[in-house]
Amino acid sequence: MNRQDYDMPFLLRYENVAWYEDGQVKILDRRVYPREKRFVICKSYKEVVNAIKNLVTQSAGPYTAIGMGMALAAFESKDLDKEERIKYLEQAAYDFKHSRVTTSARYGKVSNRALNIFKEALENEEDPIPLIIEDTIKSLNRRYETMQKVGDNLLELIPENGTVLTQCYGETIIGTLIRASKREGKNFKVICAETRPFQQGARLTASCFAEEGFDTTVITDNMVADVFSKGMVDVFTSAADTITEDGSVTNKVGTLQIAQLANIYGLPYYVTGIPDKGKKTLDDVKVEMRDPEEALKLGGQKQTQVGVKGYYPSFDKTPSKLVGKVVTDKGIYEPEKMKEYFEEEESEFY
Amino acid sequence: MNRQDYDMPFLLRYENVAWYEDGQVKILDRRVYPREKRFVICKSYKEVVNAIKNLVTQSAGPYTAIGMGMALAAFESKDLDKEERIKYLEQAAYDFKHSRVTTSARYGKVSNRALNIFKEALENEEDPIPLIIEDTIKSLNRRYETMQKVGDNLLELIPENGTVLTQCYGETIIGTLIRASKREGKNFKVICAETRPFQQGARLTASCFAEEGFDTTVITDNMVADVFSKGMVDVFTSAADTITEDGSVTNKVGTLQIAQLANIYGLPYYVTGIPDKGKKTLDDVKVEMRDPEEALKLGGQKQTQVGVKGYYPSFDKTPSKLVGKVVTDKGIYEPEKMKEYFEEEESEFY
Repeated sequence: MNRQDYDMPFLLRYENVAWYEDGQVKILDRRVYPREKRFVICKSYKEVVNAIKNLVTQSAGPYTAIGMGMALAAFESKDLDKEERIKYLEQAAYDFKHSRVTTSARYGKVSNRALNIFKEALENEEDPIPLIIEDTIKSLNRRYETMQKVGDNLLELIPENGTVLTQCYGETIIGTLIRASKREGKNFKVICAETRPFQQGARLTASCFAEEGFDTTVITDNMVADVFSKGMVDVFTSAADTITEDGSVTNKVGTLQIAQLANIYGLPYYVTGIPDKGKKTLDDVKVEMRDPEEALKLGGQKQTQVGVKGYYPSFDKTPSKLVGKVVTDKGIYEPEKMKEYFEEEESEFY
Repeated sequence: MNRQDYDMPFLLRYENVAWYEDGQVKILDRRVYPREKRFVICKSYKEVVNAIKNLVTQSAGPYTAIGMGMALAAFESKDLDKEERIKYLEQAAYDFKHSRVTTSARYGKVSNRALNIFKEALENEEDPIPLIIEDTIKSLNRRYETMQKVGDNLLELIPENGTVLTQCYGETIIGTLIRASKREGKNFKVICAETRPFQQGARLTASCFAEEGFDTTVITDNMVADVFSKGMVDVFTSAADTITEDGSVTNKVGTLQIAQLANIYGLPYYVTGIPDKGKKTLDDVKVEMRDPEEALKLGGQKQTQVGVKGYYPSFDKTPSKLVGKVVTDKGIYEPEKMKEYFEEEESEFY
């Protein structure tokens, strides 16, 4: 099944995630969407690396941007000799891997796969660029296929016409959940926590659900306990930047406190995604500390007095005891039974 | 003791709260401070009412703005006959009382006192304007005097060089706590939660503390559990729009969830203020529901897709079981012992 079989929200369409054409990569700027539909045009792979660092694209966007960026690196290096080209692409693969620290292992898988395709193409005297692009799209489709099972499983856990609270923007689960909901004719309402300081919940997640006709409400991040205490929510769900082998979660900062509050108000927390083999516990996860100034800004403009400091951990860590279910491609697991997940064959994902 | 005896932060100076002169009231626009130091000029008391409704001033600002606004109403009505003037001022007192719902009783006390001064002045054939202004400043000083005891009591509860987390902007307690801290030479650090959607924590509270040389850090509202879990905070404290007779709190939305999280992480929550006689429990408190569109805006600009709804309760309700201590002018109380507070003579406050 191809994700394009369905009419997807604007944000999830291939060409708006990241697209290589004629020596440049075009990425929809998620920092200003939906107020502006603006694309960042990258003329070198390093500009793509920076776009990832600066959150022009995030969530699953970087996987595609890295593939397209590697195609761009292949284009940039086309006049070098073979050995130098390989060096150039190796550097690019390394730079992409290290563009963000918490998801570095995942990014490395993607950039390395592109690097291998590149090397093989040179060996076979083929043009590597279309091959890398083709593989990037295949990978995107593969992720959607694997994640469709996650979306199907999550839908099962949502009560008919119930209300789901979420934050940040987990694009693949949003796409597959929307698709599952339409296929099954099962409806639900969505409350999106704004997700400061970049408002991915208010701008990105809410846009996707509203565009597809779901009843969608945005609250600021300080209203979570209020809506929980008033019985306005049935389920808290989030994607994850890492799910460890013991069923703990690293995700956009704010996840921990919503999980704590869900626990207090007796609401289940369902995390979705493909667990990360090799990350045994939260101690194995590095949290990216972003520029503190970003936490002091409102819509790009600094709002605080001189002398005021900021603090901005990109992610926080939610221990497994706060996680109700880990919703994966292979089924729905209690965190304490995650071992069973890893006994099955490894998922094709990146 | 006069509050002007001390060098106060810019925001707390008399002339920046609200000031009547020559037929107009000048109010510092707290919606844009500190990025801009802009004043809203009100040429009628109705414009002052709107300034309060629209959060040009908030916290204790409206108490002064109402007094100055009543002086303006006296100016506006100067060419009417006595009976009509009284009617005009009665309407103004009513409008100020109902400018915001949760603090209506408090606002009514202030506008009614000005109304009485006005009537008495007419009776004595005196100019009511300077009398109302004088009383407004006296009232401001009285609040500072009463609240200085609260500030002194709060300081006692803060560990030396410890870190206090707070949100929103409780101006009088900030002023008196800063003053107590300087007098006693006792230092502490401050973390301000941003307080969306108007960022009173990031813009107002943080400005006051930073200006006075305190180590001041702003976090977004979704980082509270993160800093609590890392042991970065010793005390959570907030002001209150209402403290009920049973020691429960109604305050800026977000207070409830920080109180819940403080409880989870074993941190004390100290609420400060003058408890509200007559409000027995949280059931006696009405929460103002503000325009949902305000929750969708970032710096005045709508950031969400068409079709996305907002939700904006101005305040939330924190039950007494989450309140560690109620810090008042008469001492520090456990919520269950609040009865003792009301056995003492009523505080002069408004």
